[in-house]
Amino acid sequence: MTSKNFDVVGIGNAIVDVLVQSDDSFLAQHGLNKGTMALVSAEQAEQLYAAMGPGVETSGGSAANTLAAVAQLGGRAGFIGRVRNDQLGAIFAHDLRATGAHFDTPAAESGAATARCMILVTPDAQRTMCTFLGASVALDPRDLDLSIVRQAQVLYLEGYLWDAEPAKRAFLAAAAEVRDHGGQVALSLSDPFCVDRHRQSFLELVEGHVDLLFANEREIMSLYATDSFERATEQVRGHCSLAALTRSDQGSLVLEGELTHLIPIYGLGPLVDTTGAGDSYAAGFLYGYTQGLSAERCGHIGALCAGQVVTQMGPRSQVSLKELVLEHLP
Amino acid sequence: MTSKNFDVVGIGNAIVDVLVQSDDSFLAQHGLNKGTMALVSAEQAEQLYAAMGPGVETSGGSAANTLAAVAQLGGRAGFIGRVRNDQLGAIFAHDLRATGAHFDTPAAESGAATARCMILVTPDAQRTMCTFLGASVALDPRDLDLSIVRQAQVLYLEGYLWDAEPAKRAFLAAAAEVRDHGGQVALSLSDPFCVDRHRQSFLELVEGHVDLLFANEREIMSLYATDSFERATEQVRGHCSLAALTRSDQGSLVLEGELTHLIPIYGLGPLVDTTGAGDSYAAGFLYGYTQGLSAERCGHIGALCAGQVVTQMGPRSQVSLKELVLEHLP
Repeated sequence: MTSKNFDVVGIGNAIVDVLVQSDDSFLAQHGLNKGTMALVSAEQAEQLYAAMGPGVETSGGSAANTLAAVAQLGGRAGFIGRVRNDQLGAIFAHDLRATGAHFDTPAAESGAATARCMILVTPDAQRTMCTFLGASVALDPRDLDLSIVRQAQVLYLEGYLWDAEPAKRAFLAAAAEVRDHGGQVALSLSDPFCVDRHRQSFLELVEGHVDLLFANEREIMSLYATDSFERATEQVRGHCSLAALTRSDQGSLVLEGELTHLIPIYGLGPLVDTTGAGDSYAAGFLYGYTQGLSAERCGHIGALCAGQVVTQMGPRSQVSLKELVLEHLP
Repeated sequence: MTSKNFDVVGIGNAIVDVLVQSDDSFLAQHGLNKGTMALVSAEQAEQLYAAMGPGVETSGGSAANTLAAVAQLGGRAGFIGRVRNDQLGAIFAHDLRATGAHFDTPAAESGAATARCMILVTPDAQRTMCTFLGASVALDPRDLDLSIVRQAQVLYLEGYLWDAEPAKRAFLAAAAEVRDHGGQVALSLSDPFCVDRHRQSFLELVEGHVDLLFANEREIMSLYATDSFERATEQVRGHCSLAALTRSDQGSLVLEGELTHLIPIYGLGPLVDTTGAGDSYAAGFLYGYTQGLSAERCGHIGALCAGQVVTQMGPRSQVSLKELVLEHLP
């Protein structure tokens, strides 16, 4: 696969995160479900923001976080997503390009503002997200730069795109393009409620078009509508050649055909904020995968990157992931 | 002084900080002077930003940081400063109000964008700042809400305002108002280069209108154009009834008439980022002062708040300053 110009190209929501330290009573008061993502309207976002404590802004977006980390690991990364030509859009574009990732989706010149995700971090380090999709939701097939898509070894998609019909169409068009050019398709299920909202189309996608699946325990159980993790793992084995299933502090499983690799967690310090843990896991895995490493080793790199990002506030590592891998997995 | 509605009202630049981890070679390459603040144009800001790594945005501004911390300590705080009605201006206003501080200076509806300060944090935890003053620089006497100013026990000013002529006029008008109503005036010198730029007018101000002066070692020596810290302390003693002089890891001196109180530093963890250390010191001091505590105790509260903020990225404490004081200085 080395003739391609990009190791991984991602399509996802282009979001700026607003991180706020919070507590359980705030979540209860606003009817928020801990550890998950809820979509909110512009008005709801304003109301919630007015009620929240002081925040810190940092570029986010699930697939964008993954591609930023792939670039920080030394991989050739590209991202496609839609911002508005506003201050938060400029921040998003700067931060992504500053990692070395390619990003040139034109900023929208009218319409809704750049997407914002309010992330409430509770003392147990869990994050609960409220997303105003704004400009991001209108990503459509015309925004795709197919010259980049077809240069991807792996095309990476976040499940959150399924919440927007045009974005979903853009992804399917990109998936067809990358497969026509000998590349592979990876999907992250993103969130158990997102899977609930789109179970049937996710199942069709996973069965028909996905080579590499990322999910956590709740998401994979939601996909197969089962309360047994074991049953879910057996089902996914028949559908994807490679699946990485994360289980928080119980580590992760990499399913490779009939093989199961058990990957431990990397405890690198006190748990501060789990925002970006799954995104970072996917980044480490995809980086290793596109370097031709074994599935088991890919899992270890993913777990190491996730282990780092949970020791800090925010979804993108503040330390060099490249040096982290050199130090812990030489 | 208890009949006033505000303990401390501040006037200063309304700024959003962009914090970036950097190294000495980046500073050298861009001709930046470590530990100081440089003013940059919109074009210079764009160029520098494009060259910088990924950032984190957080509300800043020297006096605004101080007033946010006064509110977090439980003091009645107000702030006057000028943002544009843009996304960063909304972030600034939200974060300040979320601390409990009063802020209602109307956002400008045209003109330059909300001020931005790019803060390069080097591995030695020093911060080097490049500020685009934007909308903030046009604060003028018409922006003053005198009904708030005259309700201040202490009016607090950042020296940085001296870089903008209308803002300086606004401050002088506010200082006259507060003194006419029995309040006091506090000034922070802000930066040695800022003092260099405005030495004569700072001297006149300190001699004639300032009750309470905050400065670090380099700033007070710059004010009196001397290379002897001792000589500078003797000069300031004649001009202000109360002065707090900070000396980084050597602690601080509180000069109260002929008395000198030596205040140690509070080492609360590894040094991460010195952004906001002076602002937090002033907050702790002013909070204690307006509660009627002794000058020595004010110095300890200031040193404690500064000791906390240097253990984290960003200028505003992520932990409760009120609880910090209860724990360490019961």
